[in-house]
Amino acid sequence: MTKTNLLESFIEQHKDKKIVAVQGLGFVGAVMSVVVANAENDNYAVIGVDLPTDAGKQKIEAINNGVFPLQADDPLIETFFQNTQKKKNFCATEDPKAFGMADIIVVDINLDVKKHVNDDYNIHAFDVKMEGFKKGIENIAMYCKADVLLLIETTVPPGTCENIVEPIMAKAFAKRNLKPNYKIAHSYERVMPGPNYINSIQNFYRVYSGMNDEAADAAQIFLENIINTKEYPLTRLANTNASEIGKVLENSFRAMNIAFIDEWTKFAEAAGVNLFEIIDAIRKRPTHRNIMKPGLGVGGYCLPKDPLLASWASQTMFNGPKLEQSENAVQVNDKMPLHTLQVIENVLDKVAGSHITVLGVSYLANVGDTRYTPLTAVYKGLKKKGANIILHDPFLIRWVEEGVDVISELDAALAFDSEVLLLSTAHKVYKESKILLQKIIDGKFRIVIDANNVFSEAQIELIKSHTELIIIGRGDIKNN
Amino acid sequence: MTKTNLLESFIEQHKDKKIVAVQGLGFVGAVMSVVVANAENDNYAVIGVDLPTDAGKQKIEAINNGVFPLQADDPLIETFFQNTQKKKNFCATEDPKAFGMADIIVVDINLDVKKHVNDDYNIHAFDVKMEGFKKGIENIAMYCKADVLLLIETTVPPGTCENIVEPIMAKAFAKRNLKPNYKIAHSYERVMPGPNYINSIQNFYRVYSGMNDEAADAAQIFLENIINTKEYPLTRLANTNASEIGKVLENSFRAMNIAFIDEWTKFAEAAGVNLFEIIDAIRKRPTHRNIMKPGLGVGGYCLPKDPLLASWASQTMFNGPKLEQSENAVQVNDKMPLHTLQVIENVLDKVAGSHITVLGVSYLANVGDTRYTPLTAVYKGLKKKGANIILHDPFLIRWVEEGVDVISELDAALAFDSEVLLLSTAHKVYKESKILLQKIIDGKFRIVIDANNVFSEAQIELIKSHTELIIIGRGDIKNN
Repeated sequence: MTKTNLLESFIEQHKDKKIVAVQGLGFVGAVMSVVVANAENDNYAVIGVDLPTDAGKQKIEAINNGVFPLQADDPLIETFFQNTQKKKNFCATEDPKAFGMADIIVVDINLDVKKHVNDDYNIHAFDVKMEGFKKGIENIAMYCKADVLLLIETTVPPGTCENIVEPIMAKAFAKRNLKPNYKIAHSYERVMPGPNYINSIQNFYRVYSGMNDEAADAAQIFLENIINTKEYPLTRLANTNASEIGKVLENSFRAMNIAFIDEWTKFAEAAGVNLFEIIDAIRKRPTHRNIMKPGLGVGGYCLPKDPLLASWASQTMFNGPKLEQSENAVQVNDKMPLHTLQVIENVLDKVAGSHITVLGVSYLANVGDTRYTPLTAVYKGLKKKGANIILHDPFLIRWVEEGVDVISELDAALAFDSEVLLLSTAHKVYKESKILLQKIIDGKFRIVIDANNVFSEAQIELIKSHTELIIIGRGDIKNN
Repeated sequence: MTKTNLLESFIEQHKDKKIVAVQGLGFVGAVMSVVVANAENDNYAVIGVDLPTDAGKQKIEAINNGVFPLQADDPLIETFFQNTQKKKNFCATEDPKAFGMADIIVVDINLDVKKHVNDDYNIHAFDVKMEGFKKGIENIAMYCKADVLLLIETTVPPGTCENIVEPIMAKAFAKRNLKPNYKIAHSYERVMPGPNYINSIQNFYRVYSGMNDEAADAAQIFLENIINTKEYPLTRLANTNASEIGKVLENSFRAMNIAFIDEWTKFAEAAGVNLFEIIDAIRKRPTHRNIMKPGLGVGGYCLPKDPLLASWASQTMFNGPKLEQSENAVQVNDKMPLHTLQVIENVLDKVAGSHITVLGVSYLANVGDTRYTPLTAVYKGLKKKGANIILHDPFLIRWVEEGVDVISELDAALAFDSEVLLLSTAHKVYKESKILLQKIIDGKFRIVIDANNVFSEAQIELIKSHTELIIIGRGDIKNN
C-alpha cells in the first residue's frame, strides 16, 4: 500500500471517531498524541505528522512499529502508548495529506529563538525563527478540511494566531476556492518534564481561546475530552492574543523570579550568610512562597526563550514596549552558570590539565533532559581552558548538544581521580548515595562544590569536617 | 516632679516587671509599645522615648495625657492603649536617661533613603541617611544598663548590627568603663498597615537573630511574650547579617514582583487585551499565585527604599555586588505612575485649566496613609501644567507631604464639575458607592479613568455604555 492508502485504511477503521492530526512529534506532540488517543470517551483516532527529515522519519517508523519514539521518564507514557497499539488508533506519517483527513489539527512544532551572544554570554541580538512554524501552517492550510479545528499549542509570539496563522489560512483557502470555515484556537500546555508528565497534562488547569466563539467552543469540547476539567476547570480568555500572552507571561514571571535571586546569591556569599536559611524563613509568608533558591542556572526549552518571544511580539506585532525586565531575566539567567564556573576556576591552581568530575548534566532533577542545560557554560568554559571533565548523569549516556558521552553508572564515574567534584543537578541518587558520601569523606576530592542544593544539612556538616566544601549561595560554610 | 523623677516613680511602681524602652514613637514604635505593654503575662512596663523635637514632644505629651498619638485604622490599637492607661504601664519621655532604666530596648526609629532624581523620576544617585540612626544608638549606648537586650526592629542596611551598632556600643562602654555585657539582637516586623495592624504583629511569623547565643536567647524570650509563637513559630537565623538581609530581601522581592508587571501592563494595552483576565488565569498555578495586577504604582515606607538599602549595604559593607535588578525595581516602580499621568494628559484637550477629580490619595486601600503615595507623580505632573485638581479620600483631611487639603466627604468631592474622574486608590467606599456610580453614568465626567482596579466587571459594563472609560491594564475596553 502507498502511504496515502495506509492513511485511508486507518481512517476507514475509525469511521466512528473524530480524526485528530498532531503536527510535530517532539516530546510535547508525541505525548499529546497518546493522551488524545487515550481520551476517556475513546472518541479520537490520532495521526502523528512529522517532517520527512531523518529524525522525523525515525520517529514515524518507530511509532508505526509499535515503539514510542522518545525516552520517557513517565511510565504512564508507555502504558498509554501500548493502549494505542491495542486499539490501533494511533499512527504516524510524513504525508501532509493526513491534514486533509483530520477534523482537528493540533500544532506542536517548535518555534525557536536564536540568540547572538559574545563569549561572556551577553545577548547583543536575537532572532525569532518563524520560518519553520509558518511552513508548518502552510502545509496544513494546503490540505486541511474546510471546517477544521486548528488548535495551536506551540508557544508562539503573541499575535501569531491573528497575524500569521489566520492570514496563511485565508490565503490558502482563497487559492483552494474554499469558504473559510476553519476554526483557529489557541491553548497552551503547562507540562512538567519528568515522571508525572501525563498527569501534568491531564490534571491541571488549562487556558484556551478561539479567534471566534465557534473556534473557542470547539477547542473547549476537545480539551474537555482529554483533560480532567471537572477538577481543573478550563479558563477561556477573550481572544488568542490574550492566551498567547498568558503563556509567555507566566514563563517570563518564572524566569524573572529565578533571575532575581542571582544577585542575592552573590550578596549572601559576600556577606558570609546562608541564603537558603533566609529563604526558608521568607517562604513562610504566603505572598513569598515562590521565592527561588540559589542554583547553577536555568535550562529547558521554555524559560530561556519565552520572555524574548514576548518582547519581540510586543514591539513588532503591537507597537508595544520592549519588555526590558523580562529580557533582562533571560540575560541574567544565561550568565548565572558563570558564577559557578568562576568559583571552580578560583579553587583550581591551574585549570589546564585539571581533572573535574561533574555529577548531573540534565537541567532538571530526576530527568534526563539536556536542552539548554546551564552546565553548558561551565563545561565549555572549563574545556576551553584545558580541563579534563568526567560527566555523570544517571539518566543519560550521551550529551547530544555537546557531542560527548556521559557515564550513567555512578560507581564508574567515581572511579576517576579528580581534584574537584561538582554537583550540578539535584538528582535524588546524589542525595541518597552512600558510596558518593563515603568517597567524599574519604577525601577522594580536594574540593567538593554543591551548585544545586544537593546535600542535606546533616550531610553538609559531615562533609565539611572532612574536606573543603563550597555551596553556591552559602557564604557561611567554613571548613575545618 | 522633674522628668527623671517621674520616670523613677514609674519604675518604682513596676518593680515586679521588666522595663522595656521603645525608641521612636512613629507608627511602628507607638504600636509596638502598646503591644508590649499588653503582653499576655503582663510582665512588661513600657517607656516610649522620642526626640525633644516639636513632633516628638507632641506625641509624648499625648501619651502621658491618655491619648494615642497617631490616627489608627485598627480599633484594637485604641483598646490596647486604653488597657495601658488602666494598668498605668505605658508612659513616654524625651529623657534619654530612660534607657538607663530599661532591661530591654527596642529600636524603632526611621532610617531613610534620599533619592536624587531628575524631572522624569530617574534616580541618578541615592544616599542612605545613617546619621539619625547612629545618633539614636549613641543615645542608648551612653545610658543603657550593662546587660541590656538591645533589639533592633528598624529596617537597616544589612551589616548594621555588626558594623555600626556594636562598635558604637563598644566605644561607649569603654568610655563608661563598663564590661560589654550588652545583648544585641535583630528582629523585623512584617506589619500590614490598616485595620488588622495589631493582628499582623501578634499573629504572624517572626524572624530574629542575635550577635551571640545569649542575645538570640533573650530576644526569643521577649518575642515569645508578645507574639503568638505557638501558632506562628519563630525562625532564628544564624546571625544579624542574615536576618537584616531577610527583611530587605523579602521587600525587594515584593518590589520586583510589582515592577515586573509594569511593562506587561503597557504590552497588554498595546495588544488590546485584558491583563486582569490573563493574570486570574495564571494565578491558578500554585507557583504563580503572587503575580501582581496592574495599578497606579507603589507607595508606603518600605518598598520604595528597602532594595536600595540592600544594594548599598552589599557594596559598602561587604564588598558585594550592586543589586541591579532590585535597584531597577525601585526605579520602575517610581516611574510607574507616569503611565497613568500620560493617559490623563492624552485624553485632555489641554491640561492647563482642566479640572480633574481624584478619588484616593492614600497609597493603600482602606487606610489613610500618604507616605510615598504613587499619586504624587500624577498630582505634581498635572499641577505643573496648570490643571485644577480636586482630591478626595475618606480617610484623610490633609495630604501633609503636598501641603494640600483633601475632601473626606464623597458627596462634596463629587459636587465639583470635572472633565476627568481618576480613581487612584481601591478604597471599598468607591467600589460600593451608589452615588458615585450614578454620577458617572449620568455623564457627569467626560472621561473616567480607573487606575487601580476599582470597578467590578458588572460596573465596567454599565459605565462603558454611558461614558468613556479607561482602565489601566485593560486594552480591551472599548466604549460605545
